[in-house]
Amino acid sequence: MEKLMQQAKHYVRDMVLGIVSAHPDLYETRDGLPLILRKGGAIQGKVGLVSGGGSGHEPAHAGYVGDGMLDAAVCGEVFTSPTPDLILEGIKAAHGGAGVLLIVKNYAGDVMNFEMAKELAELEGIEVETVIVNDDIALPATSERRGVAGTVLVHKIAGAAAAAGQPLQEVKRVAEKVIANTRSIGMAVAPCYMPESGKPGFDLSPHEMEIGIGIHGEKGLERKSLAPVQEITAQLLQKLRQEMQGNDVIVLVNGMGGTPLSELYITYHYVAEALQKDGVSIKRSLTGNYMTALEMHGFSITLCQVDDELITYFDAPVHTVGFR
Amino acid sequence: MEKLMQQAKHYVRDMVLGIVSAHPDLYETRDGLPLILRKGGAIQGKVGLVSGGGSGHEPAHAGYVGDGMLDAAVCGEVFTSPTPDLILEGIKAAHGGAGVLLIVKNYAGDVMNFEMAKELAELEGIEVETVIVNDDIALPATSERRGVAGTVLVHKIAGAAAAAGQPLQEVKRVAEKVIANTRSIGMAVAPCYMPESGKPGFDLSPHEMEIGIGIHGEKGLERKSLAPVQEITAQLLQKLRQEMQGNDVIVLVNGMGGTPLSELYITYHYVAEALQKDGVSIKRSLTGNYMTALEMHGFSITLCQVDDELITYFDAPVHTVGFR
Repeated sequence: MEKLMQQAKHYVRDMVLGIVSAHPDLYETRDGLPLILRKGGAIQGKVGLVSGGGSGHEPAHAGYVGDGMLDAAVCGEVFTSPTPDLILEGIKAAHGGAGVLLIVKNYAGDVMNFEMAKELAELEGIEVETVIVNDDIALPATSERRGVAGTVLVHKIAGAAAAAGQPLQEVKRVAEKVIANTRSIGMAVAPCYMPESGKPGFDLSPHEMEIGIGIHGEKGLERKSLAPVQEITAQLLQKLRQEMQGNDVIVLVNGMGGTPLSELYITYHYVAEALQKDGVSIKRSLTGNYMTALEMHGFSITLCQVDDELITYFDAPVHTVGFR
Repeated sequence: MEKLMQQAKHYVRDMVLGIVSAHPDLYETRDGLPLILRKGGAIQGKVGLVSGGGSGHEPAHAGYVGDGMLDAAVCGEVFTSPTPDLILEGIKAAHGGAGVLLIVKNYAGDVMNFEMAKELAELEGIEVETVIVNDDIALPATSERRGVAGTVLVHKIAGAAAAAGQPLQEVKRVAEKVIANTRSIGMAVAPCYMPESGKPGFDLSPHEMEIGIGIHGEKGLERKSLAPVQEITAQLLQKLRQEMQGNDVIVLVNGMGGTPLSELYITYHYVAEALQKDGVSIKRSLTGNYMTALEMHGFSITLCQVDDELITYFDAPVHTVGFR
């Protein structure tokens, strides 16, 4: 598998230039930095939302910058955490006088670098809070659980709370409620390929699949013979449902970047059928590429247990390229 | 490469069920047929727009059903033209008393089956017109040129003309103007795999690419060593620009289904840079998966020469899942 790019070292630079020039009405960047900022800058009096991490997950996180979601996305190199200095620039750009919430996926590098950036911003007098997304149930220990596709629901719902004028502590509370209520698990039939080396994240024979994959080319926790999608979704849903009480959910069937949309809708059909049989009420759903791993071929299922508060924020208007 | 599905023969059925259940506010279907219809049925007094063809191109065509674009999408089996009977059902569902325009991609099977459906509909007293999209310049003879990603621009712009209340002949004139002004060409670094056989559309060694691929697994017209994306885009743009006079364009960088969005934005960056150097003014742009070939890894570039009329229709409001 070959990568379509000029040189690996320009991958993120060229991507950021492409994103900004493709959407001049929505985005701006600053000083040639790999930052995607809301056009027009921070909104005075609104809590700023900043997310990001390594690149390669598009449309995350840049595609979620816009009214009703994020104010800034910080774009590290592919699958590599951005530096504290760069995150600090994102915080400063997003700060409209009401403080900034950092939405961080639970990876050691991201957690450390966003924490350092928070401290640097506080030295400059900006109030900053952090939430850590850990929705991936592939790993048993909560402390080890990674942030994956469920992060997009945190962006959307916390973004709506911020847009509604809620103060920083309240936006943080809403974000933490979404995190507490959200679980994901993924699978793949083909890996992604690293831009630098051109090597696959893992080797997989035909007729095999990985269950519990990450979004950085990490192989899964189990390798199995490929089963019909109906059996795969039943198995993944069983794992997800073991961790959840409520019966009102938002469902996200997320493509890993290289999966045809037709297959994602086929997957959604069996997910919806199984949940309905199980007495679960699907309040809202999303199907598509939301949090990808380059061209990995597979999907993840996310369930977010919701109440009226979360649904109201989920339904609030949003204007981004990545979320609909 | 394995396909995520229950059984090949249920691929389109399950996909249609998934699309309709994922978007109950936008879509309905009828009698279990593989038709995606605008929720609420035909709009009285508006020209109905019907498109479709083989499946495997998602979000085309189902994702373009909605206010401001199509009224019905007819979903054949993967890469296989729908039957005249099924197309007739789509025409009847889209007919709101003002006639129906069929937007057909230039493939022998589609052209024949849509023509037969048109005759059947006329027997039932429905006025029907047809336009044939042939934007793919990979093949030299106009009669052989296939309809590819540019079809989406015909849906959007003719859809806006219909939504504005224009009569059938005027909607047809606008659609034909878009077709006359639109050219596309594509490339791939990896093929798609057929659901029935699991076989790739073509075999490609690492470090090779196909130029001039179709959207049904057809190989390209030339096989070359892979070049940096900047050189590929320069070569494709030169072919496109040879066929066009004007300097005001809409640009569509379309993913073939398995291409990471990051690579599409990298591609857009170099396309935009080259066009600007060439004195071309990009009036609007789209980057993403619009007309795919299952999980093919590659992209196409579409240029549509525009004037104020076409831009006004392009900018008109639309409410679909596939277009933004």
